[in-house]
Amino acid sequence: MDEFPTAPTTHDLERGAVLAPRFDANGLIAAVAQHAQSGEVLMLAWMNAEALKLTLETGEAHYFSRSRNALWKKGETSGQVQKVAEVRIDCDQDAVLLKVVPQGDGGACHVGFRSCFYRVAEDGSLVEAP
Amino acid sequence: MDEFPTAPTTHDLERGAVLAPRFDANGLIAAVAQHAQSGEVLMLAWMNAEALKLTLETGEAHYFSRSRNALWKKGETSGQVQKVAEVRIDCDQDAVLLKVVPQGDGGACHVGFRSCFYRVAEDGSLVEAP
Repeated sequence: MDEFPTAPTTHDLERGAVLAPRFDANGLIAAVAQHAQSGEVLMLAWMNAEALKLTLETGEAHYFSRSRNALWKKGETSGQVQKVAEVRIDCDQDAVLLKVVPQGDGGACHVGFRSCFYRVAEDGSLVEAP
Repeated sequence: MDEFPTAPTTHDLERGAVLAPRFDANGLIAAVAQHAQSGEVLMLAWMNAEALKLTLETGEAHYFSRSRNALWKKGETSGQVQKVAEVRIDCDQDAVLLKVVPQGDGGACHVGFRSCFYRVAEDGSLVEAP
């Protein structure tokens, strides 16, 4: 698999038309999944170069599991496949934003909530959001 | 400054009412800032324990700059202070979601866009979103 290029200048990195993701020392980049219709932030996960390539090529979200140290197609076991409506990258190309439509039961979180961000910090403790 | 506790069990981590953030080997946790009104994802940044505590205590977003290796109050120089409407944590408490209202010019990105995620990957290249 081809590697992604490295942006030669800051201007290329920030304003260029070349996808030149900056993976960290572990070869990973943070990826935020946002519901394409509701705008709800569903989860934050990690991608290696292969996961990002597969996401771009297949239109379905792939991540890299740090705990399992393995490529991971979202929904492969849960059915919560994420159809990708849009892939964005940030200014310094070290974070990815996916706009997705979750399949299956429409959720994204293994605990059973629609979004992984189901708890709000309030007055020193966590409260499950309605 | 007091440390955050460690969740004793997976159930406490995922369903508990105690904020027990899991900082990485560098002492950092990923933080996504989302516009509290529009739902637009504005940026992804990093927090150390101090940045998270200050964010909770002051109601204004603080981050940790990996490039400058320093605590950073968002907007201190740009004026793009982020008033925090809500702080959320994810299922395994290794990512934070801030719902914020950007002050100043209403933007979040040093390049001049409202959101750092201003480029869309399309057919192998990046296009600035309208």
